Amino acid sequence: MTENGVNSHRGRVLTMDTMNPNVKKVEYAVRGPIVQRALQIEKELKAGVKKPFSEVIKANIGDCHAMGQRPITFLRQVLALCMYPELLSDNKFPEDAKNRARRILQSCGGGSIGAYSASQGIERVRQDVALYIERRDGGIPSDPDNIYLSTGASDAIMTMLKLLVSGEGCTRTGVMISIPQYPLYSAALADLGAVQISYYLNEESCWSLDVSELRRALNTARDHCCPRALCIINPGNPTGQVQSRQCIEDVIRFAAEENLFLMADEVYQDNVYAEGCEFHSFKKVLFEMGPKYSNTVELASFHSTSKCYMGECGFRGGYVEVINLDPDVKTQLTKLVSVRLCPPVPGQVLLDVVVNPPEPGEPSYATFIKERTATLDDLALKAKLTEETLNTVPGITCNPVQGAMYSFPRISLPERAIEEAKEQGQAPDMFYCMKLLEETGICLVPGSGFGQRDGTYHFRMTILPPTDKLKIVLAKVKEFHQDFTQQYS
Amino acid sequence: MTENGVNSHRGRVLTMDTMNPNVKKVEYAVRGPIVQRALQIEKELKAGVKKPFSEVIKANIGDCHAMGQRPITFLRQVLALCMYPELLSDNKFPEDAKNRARRILQSCGGGSIGAYSASQGIERVRQDVALYIERRDGGIPSDPDNIYLSTGASDAIMTMLKLLVSGEGCTRTGVMISIPQYPLYSAALADLGAVQISYYLNEESCWSLDVSELRRALNTARDHCCPRALCIINPGNPTGQVQSRQCIEDVIRFAAEENLFLMADEVYQDNVYAEGCEFHSFKKVLFEMGPKYSNTVELASFHSTSKCYMGECGFRGGYVEVINLDPDVKTQLTKLVSVRLCPPVPGQVLLDVVVNPPEPGEPSYATFIKERTATLDDLALKAKLTEETLNTVPGITCNPVQGAMYSFPRISLPERAIEEAKEQGQAPDMFYCMKLLEETGICLVPGSGFGQRDGTYHFRMTILPPTDKLKIVLAKVKEFHQDFTQQYS
Repeated sequence: MTENGVNSHRGRVLTMDTMNPNVKKVEYAVRGPIVQRALQIEKELKAGVKKPFSEVIKANIGDCHAMGQRPITFLRQVLALCMYPELLSDNKFPEDAKNRARRILQSCGGGSIGAYSASQGIERVRQDVALYIERRDGGIPSDPDNIYLSTGASDAIMTMLKLLVSGEGCTRTGVMISIPQYPLYSAALADLGAVQISYYLNEESCWSLDVSELRRALNTARDHCCPRALCIINPGNPTGQVQSRQCIEDVIRFAAEENLFLMADEVYQDNVYAEGCEFHSFKKVLFEMGPKYSNTVELASFHSTSKCYMGECGFRGGYVEVINLDPDVKTQLTKLVSVRLCPPVPGQVLLDVVVNPPEPGEPSYATFIKERTATLDDLALKAKLTEETLNTVPGITCNPVQGAMYSFPRISLPERAIEEAKEQGQAPDMFYCMKLLEETGICLVPGSGFGQRDGTYHFRMTILPPTDKLKIVLAKVKEFHQDFTQQYS
Repeated sequence: MTENGVNSHRGRVLTMDTMNPNVKKVEYAVRGPIVQRALQIEKELKAGVKKPFSEVIKANIGDCHAMGQRPITFLRQVLALCMYPELLSDNKFPEDAKNRARRILQSCGGGSIGAYSASQGIERVRQDVALYIERRDGGIPSDPDNIYLSTGASDAIMTMLKLLVSGEGCTRTGVMISIPQYPLYSAALADLGAVQISYYLNEESCWSLDVSELRRALNTARDHCCPRALCIINPGNPTGQVQSRQCIEDVIRFAAEENLFLMADEVYQDNVYAEGCEFHSFKKVLFEMGPKYSNTVELASFHSTSKCYMGECGFRGGYVEVINLDPDVKTQLTKLVSVRLCPPVPGQVLLDVVVNPPEPGEPSYATFIKERTATLDDLALKAKLTEETLNTVPGITCNPVQGAMYSFPRISLPERAIEEAKEQGQAPDMFYCMKLLEETGICLVPGSGFGQRDGTYHFRMTILPPTDKLKIVLAKVKEFHQDFTQQYS
């Protein structure tokens, strides 16, 4: 350290002791130690190390294409045309793809997707997103000025949380998130120095959300922080539930009563599989509840190009629609996003095609619908297969995978296993998942990475592997669970 | 506000009074009020409003393609092939482009750029970046594990600053930045609640950096913050200087003596135009200074696909190389970037081609070199033209544009103009630039947005418009400056 400008000791400037303490508190299990170990094992396999399996199967993350899901042809055609406009004179590309590419290129500076866009996103894309939302929500108007394109939904979620954090009035801002939750939320709150207010989903009734539990969590939190926002993930991640219209109404009423800013993570809005379930956007329900709510409740709704039938995670496309945001705060939001210049333009292009897909009568319509339907039908089958197979295993109980891309089954662990895990300083379900990885090559994320009721254990497993492989994965998990239970009983 | 769970008053949750106070302090002039007004004027022109000009010329931002610079064919070919791999069987694409596309696709999950990459970036791309750095730096080794790909350089800069901010030991972290500076730095420091320590570049000697000024700034800062990092932009933005090898050595020695973490923003490393100037990377100089320095000084060096001959701003590609970073902190960095999952994969692909361009003997080599040379030669001509023309205007003095993409001339403003600006609550150079915009349609950024010595006034103007248009812009600025001076004298 230095004193009076004289260097008395040459140590590192940036160490664990001196670094940002909030960053140290950040945790993100979806890419945590178990995934690091999985990558290591892959390298060991490549180097010829003998294992009881020949490949690592990564069922830890909603990475659709990595698990073999095929890109939708039309999306990629428009993207290729925008990348390399010489292809616009190529007969192999259909006219509807070319029309969309030309239309997007006309909205780019210098006709190139290499130009920066407006920081809020390309105006035309925002207009198309607004039209998409209006169609989705049965005609409820959407204003392109309320749409902010983003670098995946994660970016928009972090930006909105950053706006909400304030030291004024009370010491720290509290944000309500579900348990189990997608760990982006807990990570962002740790990074921002905000207080996480946990409300528990009800595993006994399909991970449903009860307003009484929201109220309990809120009242408990009031003595140590200032609660200001309520985050909802629907369809649920990691829990796969799809919320009923009634539940959404109740949540909105609660937010209105308790003066909470609503954040609705709706990135799985096309991923609804279960009979009788339907996706209801928070915005639509809010507006259908009448002006008492639609004129006052502040809502940010997030969407992404990474999930649904597209699964284009690598493009980092997404958007947030803000409702009832204070106009001055909106100006601040626009300023804040301008510092990072703009979201990646290829992701914006992709989003534009997603919200403006081929229409009946256009040359690509039939193929587009066929590919989209096949992808979603396949996911629905795998959701059912996962639930049914896991429920045949004694000691595993799995709620229906109504939507999204994950099962989150509860696992019974023998007392001896729990003790051994604790001796090793590991969460019991981390101990379980690590053993599963070492013995079978299957990479899952332990429930402790998402949060769960004390004394319960889970894992998150994606439904994404191709059906043949998924069957093998499920069979291996079944066998492993039985062996594990026996070994520690 | 609510009390004891009872809603006593329904106001907005998120207002200027309750929002994150740090965000309110963020400023980013490159996309500030003058650019908002420019967009408005464009709409007015479209709507038929009569103006003394027919188009807005945006010389405010280093947005190359928007100003007519052409994308490099080879880069776009590889990108199109990766987007739509069906094109790999198309004879119109050269084999070297196809080979690179195949090689990248093999490194992507499921062979698709729609898959997430590793959070640090695709391993193969990081290997290619390391090889590029080794070639650039005359063989000094570069470790792919020290490379983190990012969403443009801005993202990496903000991430490194976030790691460095700490409340421990002293109350607030201080970070040294040049004045004038690129306002990403001041914005990031405001956002993080860190203290900006301003050191002034020496306008009288081509915006050079004197270590005595660094020392003055540091000593002044020590009584109110804990200085921990020193940021350098070379070639300079907005000031266009290229630092000498000697200067870089002095800066490194200073950082070592004063125990400062070095951040070297080197995104304009190919943009060097002036005779006798050469780009020296901080890393190369550091290693040439011997192990006393190369084993101890912590350095982060940033690069981007947005500048140089590529100008592919929209892709948000970039990387940081970290040197001598504490291994535990590196683990924290890897964890932190994993929360956002991964940088946009199209930007990673682009970066891979930039660091691994066509080699002599490959089919695309000649065209690639021709396009790259033409782009850089054109920029060099425009740098010279800008400097020479501005220096013919009485009341404007412009340092040589040795590198980067901007001139940052000093302008003399009549006392009456300064008074009128102050009456209107505007910085005098903002008043000047706003008038220039209204009268000529030329959009520049006032020097006050970058910082400048009190009582001096400047503007930043890109050298990017096509030569014909640049000549018109310069002639109009000349005429405007003369009229303005006359009007207020």
